[in-house]
Amino acid sequence: MSSFPVTERSKIRRMHERGSHEHAAVHAVLDAAPLCHVGYVIDGEPYVTPTIHWRKGNRVFWHGSAASRFLRKIEGQRVCLTVSLMDGYVLARSAYNHSVNFRSAMVFGRAQSLTDPDEIAAALRHLVDDVFPGRWDSLRPMSAQEQKATSVVWMDIEEASVKDRVAPPGDDDEADYPVWAGVLPMRTALGAAEPAPGPHHDLPLPEELARLIASGRLR
Amino acid sequence: MSSFPVTERSKIRRMHERGSHEHAAVHAVLDAAPLCHVGYVIDGEPYVTPTIHWRKGNRVFWHGSAASRFLRKIEGQRVCLTVSLMDGYVLARSAYNHSVNFRSAMVFGRAQSLTDPDEIAAALRHLVDDVFPGRWDSLRPMSAQEQKATSVVWMDIEEASVKDRVAPPGDDDEADYPVWAGVLPMRTALGAAEPAPGPHHDLPLPEELARLIASGRLR
Repeated sequence: MSSFPVTERSKIRRMHERGSHEHAAVHAVLDAAPLCHVGYVIDGEPYVTPTIHWRKGNRVFWHGSAASRFLRKIEGQRVCLTVSLMDGYVLARSAYNHSVNFRSAMVFGRAQSLTDPDEIAAALRHLVDDVFPGRWDSLRPMSAQEQKATSVVWMDIEEASVKDRVAPPGDDDEADYPVWAGVLPMRTALGAAEPAPGPHHDLPLPEELARLIASGRLR
Repeated sequence: MSSFPVTERSKIRRMHERGSHEHAAVHAVLDAAPLCHVGYVIDGEPYVTPTIHWRKGNRVFWHGSAASRFLRKIEGQRVCLTVSLMDGYVLARSAYNHSVNFRSAMVFGRAQSLTDPDEIAAALRHLVDDVFPGRWDSLRPMSAQEQKATSVVWMDIEEASVKDRVAPPGDDDEADYPVWAGVLPMRTALGAAEPAPGPHHDLPLPEELARLIASGRLR
């Protein structure tokens, strides 16, 4: 089952040595999922924290509480941010040729916090409107205290590796074994909206949210 | 949006100091998803590799090519293995109270490779049959060469942190802002099986695969 795990990938290479086609491939994986896993080192030990990310050009952002140990510790440090989407189980005629259809990108850079209040406000608006188009302006405005309690971290992608597998099983020479082979596709989707209790609970679902759910995308 | 990212979690604690209820909570998150992200350190730099994991008691396993740099480099080293499931977007009346419903577990230990061929064979059988009950015995048997080309890594969970959020938005005091609030649930599921071309492509889908697809679970 050497091909089952999502561990084989393109060589890690500097972004400035990659062509625009390769840049686009890295960015497409980052954009396809809202969730990433950030790896970092504290006192020589590895940590992996899941968080929501967003992207602008070759810069990737994430955020959290200003009190977060994670965000305070990575300031100025090298991190590895990985985004993975499992697209299906690949069932072959031999165990060895079982695999996974997937897309993944591993990007490297140095984490930095935004310090300018206007840049922080613009970044948070970008995060909300990137997933829910136009929502920011409909919300109760963010207070100065709330913004102060929020850190926004960014990094420019210095190196990256990207890989996918999109194919049926690769062992159709195994004609002697009459076993079902094929792909079980896997997909993450949004379901029917669940209105919250409380004030204005009978407001209709905004059109942009209905469109997002219907699109089959996650952002 | 201090609660948007999936970064707040229970304190990292030694497993032997946790009660059986807490053990069960850590294990339930590991079992709910086939995909984990393994964080490790090479020459002081962080890396995060996605892979398929499985569990037996308090021991977690993953595998890959015996030639994998990742698997060779982590032998005997501390790693952080994180499993995260996004269960929904939480849309509040203020940007700050937007959040994500999720489950995540971060587990720590020292990676070790299996060396005994019988243990390797048993572990790979466990991996296949864990996801696809009974499939191993229907496959073309694994060759000695294939097994030699496959590494199986395990670690006993020494420390862990587990967290979830399962709730509507928390700002129903914001009655002055008539904006839709609620949850957009997110779910990953298997779709209709896609038989592979090649020999025996007209075999019926095995019952255990039909059951897996219908169950709504991923393993």
